[in-house]
Amino acid sequence: MATRCCSYDLKATIGRARAGVLSLPHGEVQTPAFMPVGTRASVRNISSGELSSSGTQMVLANTYHLWVRPGHEDVRALGGLHKMMDWSGPILTDSGGYQVFSLRKWTKVTEEGVRFRSPEDGQYRLLTPEKAVEIQEAFGVDVAMAFDECIEWPASRERSAASTERTTRWLLRALAARQHADATALFGIVQGGMYEDLRTAHAKEIASMDLDGYAIGGLSVGEEREALLDMAECSAAQLPHDSVRYLMGVGHPSDILDAVLRGVDLFDCVLPTRAGRHGQAYTSVGRKNLRNARYRTDTGPLDPNCDCPACTRVSLGYLHHLVRSKELLGGRLLTLHNLHVYHRLLANTRQAIIAQDESALKGLRESAVRHTESH
Amino acid sequence: MATRCCSYDLKATIGRARAGVLSLPHGEVQTPAFMPVGTRASVRNISSGELSSSGTQMVLANTYHLWVRPGHEDVRALGGLHKMMDWSGPILTDSGGYQVFSLRKWTKVTEEGVRFRSPEDGQYRLLTPEKAVEIQEAFGVDVAMAFDECIEWPASRERSAASTERTTRWLLRALAARQHADATALFGIVQGGMYEDLRTAHAKEIASMDLDGYAIGGLSVGEEREALLDMAECSAAQLPHDSVRYLMGVGHPSDILDAVLRGVDLFDCVLPTRAGRHGQAYTSVGRKNLRNARYRTDTGPLDPNCDCPACTRVSLGYLHHLVRSKELLGGRLLTLHNLHVYHRLLANTRQAIIAQDESALKGLRESAVRHTESH
Repeated sequence: MATRCCSYDLKATIGRARAGVLSLPHGEVQTPAFMPVGTRASVRNISSGELSSSGTQMVLANTYHLWVRPGHEDVRALGGLHKMMDWSGPILTDSGGYQVFSLRKWTKVTEEGVRFRSPEDGQYRLLTPEKAVEIQEAFGVDVAMAFDECIEWPASRERSAASTERTTRWLLRALAARQHADATALFGIVQGGMYEDLRTAHAKEIASMDLDGYAIGGLSVGEEREALLDMAECSAAQLPHDSVRYLMGVGHPSDILDAVLRGVDLFDCVLPTRAGRHGQAYTSVGRKNLRNARYRTDTGPLDPNCDCPACTRVSLGYLHHLVRSKELLGGRLLTLHNLHVYHRLLANTRQAIIAQDESALKGLRESAVRHTESH
Repeated sequence: MATRCCSYDLKATIGRARAGVLSLPHGEVQTPAFMPVGTRASVRNISSGELSSSGTQMVLANTYHLWVRPGHEDVRALGGLHKMMDWSGPILTDSGGYQVFSLRKWTKVTEEGVRFRSPEDGQYRLLTPEKAVEIQEAFGVDVAMAFDECIEWPASRERSAASTERTTRWLLRALAARQHADATALFGIVQGGMYEDLRTAHAKEIASMDLDGYAIGGLSVGEEREALLDMAECSAAQLPHDSVRYLMGVGHPSDILDAVLRGVDLFDCVLPTRAGRHGQAYTSVGRKNLRNARYRTDTGPLDPNCDCPACTRVSLGYLHHLVRSKELLGGRLLTLHNLHVYHRLLANTRQAIIAQDESALKGLRESAVRHTESH
């Protein structure tokens, strides 16, 4: 085993819910934690200073997009992703797999990898487990994700099983391809579709590989909420206690809380940032659509229980005006608010677990549900 | 004369160039000064905190746009424009005239005012000198502009003269319509097209009305740069020494410096903010287009002589990437940079005038020219 640059220290549990500390080359992450998505090395319209003050500890960026533009060699020339995007905390990148497989008719999948044509520049490219490691190590990120096969939903048991086996073979190739295991951790991804036995078996199998960390992938692809949570739970249950567990691409506040209760530590999702840009805010009385005319002359705050700039400096009426007038400041303020909400929710959840306060944890789950429901 | 809520204290001059202090209900403005444009009660994508830290003292907003949406009654309901947009410093609004006259085929101009149909909502509206005052007083701004006639360019001497006379009649109606002269100052606008004798006569005429302040309008409409500066100079020359002089809608840094040298104190323009959104930055070595591939792997700063966030926190290469990737953070950082440049240039100009340092003033003019030239 190469030098390890990633560790997870479990601090407390309530049932399956965990609080811990994830240590990475660029700092510690108090878990459970949420990573905002900075697809093109920028969390849309949010500065690094605003990320910090909203409570962001770690950021996710997308390998596919940064490979296509500016390219991993340019990122390296600009001093790596941290320096380039002015973010000194930990960064995780996905493997590019999810985006490449989303191209569908532009792709050809073989055991070697995925050959595809990027719509952005019309170029043919080949993404393999080795290439995904090379790119992410060039970025200099704290955590690289292994390249996994992402299949359509729904998929048969047979197809899910075959794909999961390929994901394992690709994981072994990724592990063998690492050049900077001392600087960039590598997480494997549990697959297995919507089949509990496949999930369980795959989680056990990769758990035995003693990886830097583990992700649960292939979920939030269209399945029912209960299926998502069941699959997350049975996957997490097989993963080592002393490693971090990351549920990819989930979700609303209520989804996240429910996944924490099932043993997950780390999350990413475009929802808080995308919803903000589109005029939606998660608040303590429900999800508000700021386009709604009811806010036209409302001088009250977006959420009296929030201390973010959108809630403390301007009125609902002004936010409504900005959103209606397509003023960028509106989406920016709402994005900031949503990030504050997500981070506060997880910080409070962590505190409740550390304090062994079961009723506080229950209250936080109820609060997450309220934040998610339409207002 | 009603209670006056606006005064101008001339502190020093070098030739025609002036340094002074404009006192308004929401604070003092050290002149010469530049007002960023916040058309819809928001300087596009810039927060009020960022405005302050960039050196902004006073903001301009557009009466036309805010009348159409959200409407002046809604602005009043939201506590006035200052409270609504979270800006505690002085605000000036234009009269709406410039926008209404730009609608051209949607408008009918009579002595009463301008009847028009707003493309935004298809509604018919009538803007008159009285209505423009009513709207701006409802906003609660520090400075309201009198409704003037804005004619096409080029225009004949006869047409320019007739229009200037109408502008004077409308100014008298605006003065008579004021209800809150103690809270909102009213500035008159010198017109006269590109005819020096008309300009001189009109400036003299409205100077005799002892107004709160004076603007120079009808310029930067397509005429040559020399004509603009000549018209600004002959207009300014007739205006009272103890009143502020505001040149509307000008311009590049070099235009602004040249107008200061001709006796102008106050400016507004969309250029620094619009150019920033479109990937252009005024720098000490010239105007840079960040789309240019030469910046791709440049780890240096946008401008080593600037202390703004864009110049101190990120590289040219990252700014290039953001602009190429259409990431909003790029336009936001470049807008901030351009505002820093404009405000610093005028603050330094003021300092040179106060210090009676003619060679510094000359150097600042050269610097403004350099900032403006394409790099």
